[in-house]
Amino acid sequence: MNAAKDNPRVVFSPSGMRGRVRLGTQLDQAARDIGADLQSLCGGKGQCAKCRVRVLEGVPDDSGLTSCAAHLSAPTELEKKLFPAEDLHSGWRLACQAMVIGDVAVEVPDESRAGKQVICKAPGCQSVELDPTVRRHGLYPCLSGTSNSIGAWEEIARTMGPPAYSSPPLPDLPLLQILPPVGTDSSGSTTIVVRESVECIAVFKDPPSAITGVALDIGTTTLAAYLCDLETGAVLATASAVNPQVSLGEDVISRIAYANGCADGRRNLQKLVIESVNTMIEDLARQAGVSPACMLDMTCVGNTCMHHLFLGIDPSGLGRSPFIPVICRSLDFKARDLGIHIAAGALVHMLPVIAGFVGADSIGVLLALEPHNLDENVLVIDVGTNGEIVVGNHGRLICASCATGPALEGATLRHGMRAAPGAIERVRIDPVTLAVDVSIISGDTGSKKSALAVGICGSGIIDAMAQMFLVGVIGKNGNLNRRLDVPNMTRDKDGVPVFVLVPADQTATGREICITQDDVRAVQMAKGAIHAAVRILMKELNLSSFDRVLLSGAFGSRIDPASALAMGLFPYCPVERVRSVGNAAGDGARLALLSRKKRLEAARVARQVQYIELTDHPDFQREFALAMWLPHMRSSSLLPEF
Amino acid sequence: MNAAKDNPRVVFSPSGMRGRVRLGTQLDQAARDIGADLQSLCGGKGQCAKCRVRVLEGVPDDSGLTSCAAHLSAPTELEKKLFPAEDLHSGWRLACQAMVIGDVAVEVPDESRAGKQVICKAPGCQSVELDPTVRRHGLYPCLSGTSNSIGAWEEIARTMGPPAYSSPPLPDLPLLQILPPVGTDSSGSTTIVVRESVECIAVFKDPPSAITGVALDIGTTTLAAYLCDLETGAVLATASAVNPQVSLGEDVISRIAYANGCADGRRNLQKLVIESVNTMIEDLARQAGVSPACMLDMTCVGNTCMHHLFLGIDPSGLGRSPFIPVICRSLDFKARDLGIHIAAGALVHMLPVIAGFVGADSIGVLLALEPHNLDENVLVIDVGTNGEIVVGNHGRLICASCATGPALEGATLRHGMRAAPGAIERVRIDPVTLAVDVSIISGDTGSKKSALAVGICGSGIIDAMAQMFLVGVIGKNGNLNRRLDVPNMTRDKDGVPVFVLVPADQTATGREICITQDDVRAVQMAKGAIHAAVRILMKELNLSSFDRVLLSGAFGSRIDPASALAMGLFPYCPVERVRSVGNAAGDGARLALLSRKKRLEAARVARQVQYIELTDHPDFQREFALAMWLPHMRSSSLLPEF
Repeated sequence: MNAAKDNPRVVFSPSGMRGRVRLGTQLDQAARDIGADLQSLCGGKGQCAKCRVRVLEGVPDDSGLTSCAAHLSAPTELEKKLFPAEDLHSGWRLACQAMVIGDVAVEVPDESRAGKQVICKAPGCQSVELDPTVRRHGLYPCLSGTSNSIGAWEEIARTMGPPAYSSPPLPDLPLLQILPPVGTDSSGSTTIVVRESVECIAVFKDPPSAITGVALDIGTTTLAAYLCDLETGAVLATASAVNPQVSLGEDVISRIAYANGCADGRRNLQKLVIESVNTMIEDLARQAGVSPACMLDMTCVGNTCMHHLFLGIDPSGLGRSPFIPVICRSLDFKARDLGIHIAAGALVHMLPVIAGFVGADSIGVLLALEPHNLDENVLVIDVGTNGEIVVGNHGRLICASCATGPALEGATLRHGMRAAPGAIERVRIDPVTLAVDVSIISGDTGSKKSALAVGICGSGIIDAMAQMFLVGVIGKNGNLNRRLDVPNMTRDKDGVPVFVLVPADQTATGREICITQDDVRAVQMAKGAIHAAVRILMKELNLSSFDRVLLSGAFGSRIDPASALAMGLFPYCPVERVRSVGNAAGDGARLALLSRKKRLEAARVARQVQYIELTDHPDFQREFALAMWLPHMRSSSLLPEF
Repeated sequence: MNAAKDNPRVVFSPSGMRGRVRLGTQLDQAARDIGADLQSLCGGKGQCAKCRVRVLEGVPDDSGLTSCAAHLSAPTELEKKLFPAEDLHSGWRLACQAMVIGDVAVEVPDESRAGKQVICKAPGCQSVELDPTVRRHGLYPCLSGTSNSIGAWEEIARTMGPPAYSSPPLPDLPLLQILPPVGTDSSGSTTIVVRESVECIAVFKDPPSAITGVALDIGTTTLAAYLCDLETGAVLATASAVNPQVSLGEDVISRIAYANGCADGRRNLQKLVIESVNTMIEDLARQAGVSPACMLDMTCVGNTCMHHLFLGIDPSGLGRSPFIPVICRSLDFKARDLGIHIAAGALVHMLPVIAGFVGADSIGVLLALEPHNLDENVLVIDVGTNGEIVVGNHGRLICASCATGPALEGATLRHGMRAAPGAIERVRIDPVTLAVDVSIISGDTGSKKSALAVGICGSGIIDAMAQMFLVGVIGKNGNLNRRLDVPNMTRDKDGVPVFVLVPADQTATGREICITQDDVRAVQMAKGAIHAAVRILMKELNLSSFDRVLLSGAFGSRIDPASALAMGLFPYCPVERVRSVGNAAGDGARLALLSRKKRLEAARVARQVQYIELTDHPDFQREFALAMWLPHMRSSSLLPEF
């Protein structure tokens, strides 16, 4: 018995998906078995004619269909009726009618591909049809030598001309530098990766296990990266890190000052973030077992300043009125030009920015949450070192930005930390005894040590503020009630009044974890800025309430909506309409990575959304002063029962 | 008196050419004064209507032509007849009718530009219409701040939309990295350089003195670079250097061996040539007083191996039959990807190659000499370390390559050197006394030392061989006639028979300059290979003679056609039909730098010319053996009288 003969090889172009199937398998079944994308609406009955394919090897010679017949069964009566003679002659078939009877390669034209619907798991996040900018293209027969006086590339380009591509995509330099000369490899398994049908960006001697891309979210304080399989949409790994620029300035304004304050300022800031991204890429590669050479696309969101610093663009225009970015539109640059260590030929796609303080991160949020496609009025708050706020619906969308400082990300507070193992993420305070109960983010190991508190993260501080307010530890003005006679209300070794969440003997550090008056003030400032911004946008649209409130941000998924409401992060709204949607900016970057349509949508939305500058808004100072109160005085009467 | 008012400023778009003119100057005269390109066939009589322009500033408002009238005189009756009302309304004018009466910016559409005819100075080289890929675009008003929430780039892009460009060109990353933020500069003199109307590759705060490009010819032994003004076609500077790869292998085959013989072989070879090119670029910049940042385009020719090594492509396919290049087609890569230190956004255009041993240098020769446009039969010999030969006319062109070794470039001979100061370039020998008279290439300084001989270059060795043969110092077989009783025919200190050209006391080195038997053999091998190749191509085309013989090569302009004929470099042809045309490959690179049409022509010719492989040609060995004779036995009877 001849195993190879009984199990002929089937190759689908241009995806390059291939495998062996049992002799006599229907071609549509072979596609399903191999995982190649091929449409079939009628379930293989030959009725929908959606599974048209064209035979690439074994195209019939002038004498008829003989050589084709060696690979696929002869055309059925149904096919003879469906296809004109010249189409049959050119090798056109219905996959549901043709039976595999030998090695065969078929081309699946665009209209016969089903496309894959990828479900975005985050709540509120839209699903998307898989349509990445890069695709694999298998070569057969490949680099097998030629008698003509043309180059190895020209031999490849010939297989990449029509019908697969309208004209052969051009080779990128790094691809040419690793392209083996003719004759060194004739195993026929070479895979080329093609970008937007115009450029060949990578070549693999053996088919890569996956064609992947990286979605990057550059926060002022936190970096997040997602490794996605561009052929399935799956998230293969995630990584995060503190933005190392923090060491040169905690917020946007101090980084702009640093960038312009010394000769290499801008370059140093760029270098720091790029190095950190490269470390995350190594981490993603390790986690997923995928080589960085297989990371063939990248999308990137971040606020306008992070966007500029990542690209090495002068951010000084963002530091003074009228806060004009150098560039707003979406951009594509070679990863190598930025020093990003993914495939040398890959592009980095920067999503567009809207204004000086509403950046590509907001575009990411919009892509993920799609308020521009909704009838109901939505409030989206992206909580980070800056708060970016979008209000509206498909009719009109307006946005604004406010400086919140890093408090809501857990930084700058006495015991603040990011949402890592050991961070307090939930706080409940007994209204009678004022005893504190905390939930702590556990580590991977599950060891005893990891169950002890190290500090408090953003969602924890929002919980703590809300609870302290509700039980009377702090007043409406945010002052600590020092007259409370409970052990938690005490003074630290320097005599500063503090409210203790976890006593020293129950922490991982051996020091108590507490909230100071300064901590409360920092959070009040942050929440006040967001609250005031929301009120101004509501006035602008003549809105008195929202149908939906969505909280996003690197720690957005961890915020308790009831606590956010109780501490007055935004004007009152029934709690069931408030949802935390996780890192929507990152989700948006991921959607843009998987879908070219999403990139077009981003450009459209960026033009559609209207930016409101708050710094010179006549009402802002008054709204801000009022919004410092806990909760905002005008909504306090609406405070829900806890 | 108000000087600015009496001398309004005129700006021509998209060239950005600008200047002040006397109030009342005709606009066509202003174009001539400023040097802007504007057609005028009728000499300003308003008859040809070729000088149509469109006012950019001062476009009439809805109320009529008032605001236009503030900058140019009102439309004449002739213009009112010529232009439909809506065109007049849009600001269309005839430059010969409009008078400058205030600051004005006008757009010169493509059809109104005359184009500049550039005459190529080398004999046999075609002239070309100036049509470079990069052009300057002046910005007015520029970066002067904006009240809209868009970026500085978007402000620029708005001025670069229609009618100047169908859509705004995209910015390259290095441009964004130096783009000043809005408001820092409102002097209105910013200049953007646009490539192919699709990409903005550079920005200058002040108009650059020149927009230039570099044409590069990478020879196996010699590198040559030309700095050209892309707006006038002028050659601003030239530079040359020994290809430093010589230290790792004298010919193509030994470099291929080195490239594959060690881990970093290929990278080392690329690094060497790139470093040397960068040194030449510094030299060109110094000579012409032009910053490398103003070098905004580059074209490159070289044989296929030099082409591959320059790009870092694996040359091993060129080292074994069937000698297949990795890629033949023309290529454009960013200079920064190659480490070339011209403007960071500039492209390097690699001209196409024809085959493994007929490279982009041959395409350069064809572009310069255009045999494909001639009726007469032409033989083109590009003499270098490889000899590339093209034979034919517009009907059919065939080409071949033969290994000549570096002897004809003056290398490897005992006293060989390149055509630098001190090189013997002409040799005459008295038929009776055998006294030798030499011409020496003089240095720039004109000092006495530089008039002394250092060695002998390629044209000198061809002269010497021809003369030695004609006076009987060597026989038809190339043997030195040791029985000659003259002082020149002697032995060196090791007892090797030599023919002395310059005695020791008349050289710069203090050592005699002589020709050895080995020198003669090396030259015989080189000329034999070329001669044999030409004969095979003649047979292929059934040709018995040529209408024209053109000798090119880095030292081609220095070869004495009579000497080349006398020593049998090619089959006999009346000497008046033989011409030396200089470095035609370099000329071709220069033409492709100045003209986009020439680049298209290169692609066309590369497909048209047919390559003949000589290594496995049945006649080659026999022809080569015969062609070693001095001169070729079959043409010796035709030897002209000297």
